[in-house]
Amino acid sequence: MALLQRFLRLIAFQTERERVVILGSGWAGYTVARGLDPKKYQAVVVSPRSYFAFTPLLASTSVGTLEFRTAMEPIRTRRTHVDFFQGWADQVDFKNKKITIEEAVEERAQSTAGVEERDAGESKEHRHERREVEVQKGKLFDLTYDKLIVTVGCYSQTFGTPGVKEHAMFLKDVGDARKIRNRILACFETAALPTTTDEQRKQLLNFAIVGGGPTGIEFSAELHDIITEDLARIYPELVKFSKITVYDVAKKVLPMFDEKLAQYAMDTFAREGIDIKTDHHVEELRPGAPDENVSSKDDHLVYTLKVKEGGALGVGMVVWSTGLMQNPFVANALSHVHEIPNDFRRLEGPSNDPGNLHWCVKIDEKTGSVVTDTRLRLKLVADTKEDTKPEAILDDVFVLGDCAIMEGTQYPATAQVAAQKASWLAKRLNKGDIEKTSGFAWRNMGVMAYIGNWNALLQGGGNTGGISGRLAWIVWRGAYLTKSVSWRNKILIPVYWAINWLFGRDVSRF
Amino acid sequence: MALLQRFLRLIAFQTERERVVILGSGWAGYTVARGLDPKKYQAVVVSPRSYFAFTPLLASTSVGTLEFRTAMEPIRTRRTHVDFFQGWADQVDFKNKKITIEEAVEERAQSTAGVEERDAGESKEHRHERREVEVQKGKLFDLTYDKLIVTVGCYSQTFGTPGVKEHAMFLKDVGDARKIRNRILACFETAALPTTTDEQRKQLLNFAIVGGGPTGIEFSAELHDIITEDLARIYPELVKFSKITVYDVAKKVLPMFDEKLAQYAMDTFAREGIDIKTDHHVEELRPGAPDENVSSKDDHLVYTLKVKEGGALGVGMVVWSTGLMQNPFVANALSHVHEIPNDFRRLEGPSNDPGNLHWCVKIDEKTGSVVTDTRLRLKLVADTKEDTKPEAILDDVFVLGDCAIMEGTQYPATAQVAAQKASWLAKRLNKGDIEKTSGFAWRNMGVMAYIGNWNALLQGGGNTGGISGRLAWIVWRGAYLTKSVSWRNKILIPVYWAINWLFGRDVSRF
Repeated sequence: MALLQRFLRLIAFQTERERVVILGSGWAGYTVARGLDPKKYQAVVVSPRSYFAFTPLLASTSVGTLEFRTAMEPIRTRRTHVDFFQGWADQVDFKNKKITIEEAVEERAQSTAGVEERDAGESKEHRHERREVEVQKGKLFDLTYDKLIVTVGCYSQTFGTPGVKEHAMFLKDVGDARKIRNRILACFETAALPTTTDEQRKQLLNFAIVGGGPTGIEFSAELHDIITEDLARIYPELVKFSKITVYDVAKKVLPMFDEKLAQYAMDTFAREGIDIKTDHHVEELRPGAPDENVSSKDDHLVYTLKVKEGGALGVGMVVWSTGLMQNPFVANALSHVHEIPNDFRRLEGPSNDPGNLHWCVKIDEKTGSVVTDTRLRLKLVADTKEDTKPEAILDDVFVLGDCAIMEGTQYPATAQVAAQKASWLAKRLNKGDIEKTSGFAWRNMGVMAYIGNWNALLQGGGNTGGISGRLAWIVWRGAYLTKSVSWRNKILIPVYWAINWLFGRDVSRF
Repeated sequence: MALLQRFLRLIAFQTERERVVILGSGWAGYTVARGLDPKKYQAVVVSPRSYFAFTPLLASTSVGTLEFRTAMEPIRTRRTHVDFFQGWADQVDFKNKKITIEEAVEERAQSTAGVEERDAGESKEHRHERREVEVQKGKLFDLTYDKLIVTVGCYSQTFGTPGVKEHAMFLKDVGDARKIRNRILACFETAALPTTTDEQRKQLLNFAIVGGGPTGIEFSAELHDIITEDLARIYPELVKFSKITVYDVAKKVLPMFDEKLAQYAMDTFAREGIDIKTDHHVEELRPGAPDENVSSKDDHLVYTLKVKEGGALGVGMVVWSTGLMQNPFVANALSHVHEIPNDFRRLEGPSNDPGNLHWCVKIDEKTGSVVTDTRLRLKLVADTKEDTKPEAILDDVFVLGDCAIMEGTQYPATAQVAAQKASWLAKRLNKGDIEKTSGFAWRNMGVMAYIGNWNALLQGGGNTGGISGRLAWIVWRGAYLTKSVSWRNKILIPVYWAINWLFGRDVSRF
């Protein structure tokens, strides 16, 4: 009954246009939603976040080089013709072209990185009971679609390292950046108290970054910038205690850059006193100094980071930026067996279609991502005993972004790939020529990484080599400026760069 | 032992200059700290907040007309010569010119209005025990002063109205503004869900403001602005449900403005559909709709506001902006009996000084504020049985801002009075002529209130009458711009006014 009413209310949202439901508001979801022709499609974004986070600027916002909102683009604006529901996709019913959404307007964690499965440890029965309750409470509702675009992205991978999930900082969203900024400043403020010992000061101002990818390196560089440019003047007596260390399990950092550029970064960091410890393995992160045992959660000044090769050391903050884990949505909603009408899917390869097959979503063993064809359509595998299982493509269901992998490719899980797939798909849907075209191909535009002190690495696409230094920095900032979607931020970002260059970064916390 | 170490460490902070310890970082504390000559004085600010909140802009930041940081000035900057400890003043020892500070770097409530006594319900013994523990944990430390300036301000007064402390929003600090902004947008986002009934939509978008002073009126105006200018375009189907109502126990709002101007505001609000209900008494605020009984804290969409004259109504948010209550610091640290060396104080009036008297801080019966002489020095009353108790002035201890009242005056508890007292005191201390001057006198610069849609009321000082409308608005914004202390914000504020006028306010939450 309640469900029926809800369903009826939804009719109101129906229009003659085809409804395209987009799950997620990251690089893929936000780009495709804005790319769809509003005259042809009703784009409906479903996401726990009310905005798109412009991830390349997160490191800058986490130290106050930029204000948080300069890295945010609200999904709802005066101009965009995109409908939005704030919630999590909970179930997908391919047969009736319907998804079940759990509303999440008050979701506490809405602006922070997904780390752990939301329904972690919940048995199927438990989960079912909870959902029953939520149906009564009206927390769940159904939404029908003509086309479904899944761009739910990935969670942060902690490899089960004890304490990391609870005590480390992540850097995937604006809420993460805010937590980091407040923590850095709180560490210095605490170190400035007369009640703090020099030993505690050393530990409070000891910052560890785990993961030597672009995010970890750029954050270390930005952290070094704020310490040398601002905090050194504001807390002159404390700077001698501060230390930045980057840990990585691999032999080298920035693997996506060629040797020369990576070396340039290492040399720069060495000169600036940022330690890079490759071949190091983090074993644990716990609250309290190495020599104390803390009981209550808030009863500690610092944390203890246990490194296999370095023992236990006291740190003020650990920023964790390594590894992606598959979004639980894939396991909960997609991977199990589905009943799919014949006319919703087309068979691939040499196999006769008995028509009454049950289907599973095709999952890539290595990455756990959802496999799509070259037109970004969801791939299905028949649930049969045969060795060579029949495969099929599900029409009207597309998967892109970090949670998807296109068959026959090894494209990296980057914003660039996600955004290119999204623009390609939007164009195809607008033109209605997805069948006629040759499928998606990624154009490698190269990679960039800020390495501090107005310097950046810039690696061209393909084997065009790369540049580094001041020029790269200018290109880097320029690229962000033009990429940074809205005009509001095109104006605000240079204003903040100028103001913080003139007056220094704001160090107040709230 | 621990205390001794702590004390020794403090010697390091000593300089040849006189140390002026300033408690609080509001209008009075921040102004006097920046006004003191760094060559003559070592200014040390002790405050639970790491910044000064420019209160006139809070209403604007609470709806996104301005970014939060434009209403903040960090106490620590590259330029200012002000020392800072983040903490609460806990005890004052006038005899040894020493205060005890409880550090508060991690204080959760640091950026929100003080509502309830921090040690509420704690017995003297309890409080003592807790402090013992905190001494061992190093959370308390002592700081000696040559001169002490008390500017701890006031808390928000809820008159014991049930549920207000827990569920109402206040608007005294940046954290309050952030909570309000997120709540307004969450109300609209929730109302946009298909699971929300029209009845619930009416309640979610029913906003109540309690208190018809400038803060309440300006917030209502700003709220009306964001709803009509932005939310009406973003949620066109929802605006018909939204409602703004201002409640006040008094017969009229804006008592500090003359009849004509107050009437102009009433008429404007009436035209804009903002209800002003004078002579109304709020009796309770509880979570849940009028017809539900909610158990758990998060298990409700709306709140129920009980008004004596209007019954129980469902509301999405209540902003409470009425009344000040005395800062608990006054009762905990100041009001009890002190032993004060003769040469620290001077006797007033015709009375012989036995020299062995015990002294209490003089408290104003009506307001509960601390009484000062015309030179803003703390007044003492002898703790004797006599009817006409000897009174004295405590040298080197000054009290200003909302927690102080100058004897023989009825100056209002406003930012203007606090700031003027602070500038006056800084000048006197810099010149060292506090004895020779005639004492402080407030120069009434008039009052201003924004009433929405680019309009403001401007009441000149004394009986110079006032103006209203567009012109007042220009004066109003101009005044804020020049007043807004730092150059950073002098630049940022017009930038945000322009950008939000061009592109609309940002409606994303994080």
